[in-house]
Amino acid sequence: MKNIYVIGVGLIGGSFALDLKALKPDVVVYGIDHNEAHLTTALELGLIDKKAILNDIKNADLVILSIPVNATLKLLPTLLDLIPKQGIVVDMGSTKEAICKVVDDHPKRSQFLANHPIAGTEFSGPTAAHVGLFKNKTNIICDIEKTDTERSKKVISIFESIGMRIRHMNAKDHDKHIAYVSHLSHISSFMLGKTVIDKEKNESNIFDMAGSGFESTVRLAKSSPEMWTPIFEQNKTNVIETLDEYIQNLTHFKKLMESEDFEAIRNEMKNTNYIKTILKGIS
Amino acid sequence: MKNIYVIGVGLIGGSFALDLKALKPDVVVYGIDHNEAHLTTALELGLIDKKAILNDIKNADLVILSIPVNATLKLLPTLLDLIPKQGIVVDMGSTKEAICKVVDDHPKRSQFLANHPIAGTEFSGPTAAHVGLFKNKTNIICDIEKTDTERSKKVISIFESIGMRIRHMNAKDHDKHIAYVSHLSHISSFMLGKTVIDKEKNESNIFDMAGSGFESTVRLAKSSPEMWTPIFEQNKTNVIETLDEYIQNLTHFKKLMESEDFEAIRNEMKNTNYIKTILKGIS
Repeated sequence: MKNIYVIGVGLIGGSFALDLKALKPDVVVYGIDHNEAHLTTALELGLIDKKAILNDIKNADLVILSIPVNATLKLLPTLLDLIPKQGIVVDMGSTKEAICKVVDDHPKRSQFLANHPIAGTEFSGPTAAHVGLFKNKTNIICDIEKTDTERSKKVISIFESIGMRIRHMNAKDHDKHIAYVSHLSHISSFMLGKTVIDKEKNESNIFDMAGSGFESTVRLAKSSPEMWTPIFEQNKTNVIETLDEYIQNLTHFKKLMESEDFEAIRNEMKNTNYIKTILKGIS
Repeated sequence: MKNIYVIGVGLIGGSFALDLKALKPDVVVYGIDHNEAHLTTALELGLIDKKAILNDIKNADLVILSIPVNATLKLLPTLLDLIPKQGIVVDMGSTKEAICKVVDDHPKRSQFLANHPIAGTEFSGPTAAHVGLFKNKTNIICDIEKTDTERSKKVISIFESIGMRIRHMNAKDHDKHIAYVSHLSHISSFMLGKTVIDKEKNESNIFDMAGSGFESTVRLAKSSPEMWTPIFEQNKTNVIETLDEYIQNLTHFKKLMESEDFEAIRNEMKNTNYIKTILKGIS
């Protein structure tokens, strides 16, 4: 693998390029981005070695596709049309089912690896990219049986070398579970931010009162709407289900407050403290 | 101020004791706690110099009351009964209205300062205490006009010396605003944790999928139920109001998802990105 094409030179694509170049100094990383300013920044920051255009994909050994998931849906079939015999296309998106479906019947389906590194943050763009983003992060590979073994092995070896833990899952299960542990967190955070801003925006000094707890809980509300809108769109059914359950739990909590059943409230919190055990496992 | 009594030798009380001893090496810090094991740990860790009992308060120059707010409600009048002429009692609780009310008619009301350092974390107990917890944190003082000026000045000077920014507010406004920027965050976090645990508890490997985003959003669900139940109880009306608005915003978001109005969803998130500007102010 010598000619690497990174499409979308933001946090994920740019950080991957940095790690890959450190790992394999003889690769050439080409950048493709519809945002010309981002591409120039990526070149200046040394995330990529050269700018490229879509048609150059015909020379690619590896294509890393790290753009919003709606753009992935549109572009992925074309990339498979262009990719040469030895090449492989790997996507980095936060949804998997729709993306897998759009190339399910593509004659070169085996040259695509459906992939999701759980490494995003609330920051985006090439300036957010940094060495080591993927270290100790989980990387979910979906429907691996549909990808050519020799090609997927090479990619997995790179992911492992830059510090990722590999997990396998089918695309449908991925989307169902990621709705709970990632997509719902973003909505709960965005709506918390909205609730507080709506109430407090004319009382700016009030934000003095916000401490590290609020900051942590609302952190994801800094995330990019351009990236997250298509994620919610593609994972609509699962996300609505998680939202339903979340709203039910909040409504139940409110009812306990209204009926002054503080013993039940204490128990709710006590049971949920179990999250400590869970978080120990992931940090 | 020489004889300092810290009642409740946990995160807040213990950290304050450490900062105070660094600032004024000649003070003697006495610890009082209904949990004898905590008191012994606090002594071993050097948070306090000596163990004490409630009746010793009659020798206190400064009492720091850092216990759950329901316990504060019960104990505060007794402390004012005991406090000698030169002394002052300062509480550190996350609610202020009920606490102020319980001593409103106390003959020694002017020897009490209603106070809330916005410095809590999800950790508790003496082992969580550490130097510098209060640095650059906001400290809200309520109804200062009811406290004797000479005494409150001394306390404020200590708070400023350990790095806190002082803000003033009446107790009613404090409770209203803190419901938004602190109490609601805790409920949103607890219920997020509950929703995910309920769904995923039999699929432990799924938590592999949880990244730093989930971890951050659910962090406050590690908090102590013993501390938070009475806070919700004392700030019931305000908390229910914030919960109502939060649930309404989530329900609206869900409706936008159901009607596939992703343009409106994008706009919701874009507007809420304003939180970046707000958070810049507090970090």
